[in-house]
Amino acid sequence: QRDTQGRCRCQDGGTDVILPKRIQRLEVFPPSPSCPNVEIIVTLKDNRGQKCLNPESTFAKNYIKRAIKKRSAE
Amino acid sequence: QRDTQGRCRCQDGGTDVILPKRIQRLEVFPPSPSCPNVEIIVTLKDNRGQKCLNPESTFAKNYIKRAIKKRSAE
Repeated sequence: QRDTQGRCRCQDGGTDVILPKRIQRLEVFPPSPSCPNVEIIVTLKDNRGQKCLNPESTFAKNYIKRAIKKRSAE
Repeated sequence: QRDTQGRCRCQDGGTDVILPKRIQRLEVFPPSPSCPNVEIIVTLKDNRGQKCLNPESTFAKNYIKRAIKKRSAE
C-alpha cells in the first residue's frame, strides 16, 4: 500500500509516462525515514518544472534501462 | 568512447560501487547538447557530498533495478 502521508515528495502515485525528449533530469529517492516509498522525480526541460513519475510504470522501468544501455553502447 | 570534454558533470568514468545505505538521492542525466554521456550523480547522506557513479557498472544497474522493484513489492 502506498504511503501518501508524512514527508513524501509525491503525494500521489505519479504520472505513468513522460515524453523522453522533455526529460532533463531524473531523480531516484530510495525509501527513507521521511518517506517509505521509492520516489522518482523528473525535471522537465525549458523550466517546465518537476513531475512525479510512477516507479511502477512500464515507462519508468524501460526509460531507465534504456538510458543506461545507451550509455554502454557508445 | 567516453567524452570527458565539454560541460559534462563527471570528468571521469565515475565510481563503480557506492554503499546503498549511504545513498540519499540518485540523479540520472540523459545525453544532452552539453554532454553526450548518460551521467549518474549520487548524493550521499549526512552532507557527504556528491559522487559520479559509473552507469556501466553492475552496481548501478542492479541498484536502480532493485530500487524500482522494492517499491513495487510493497
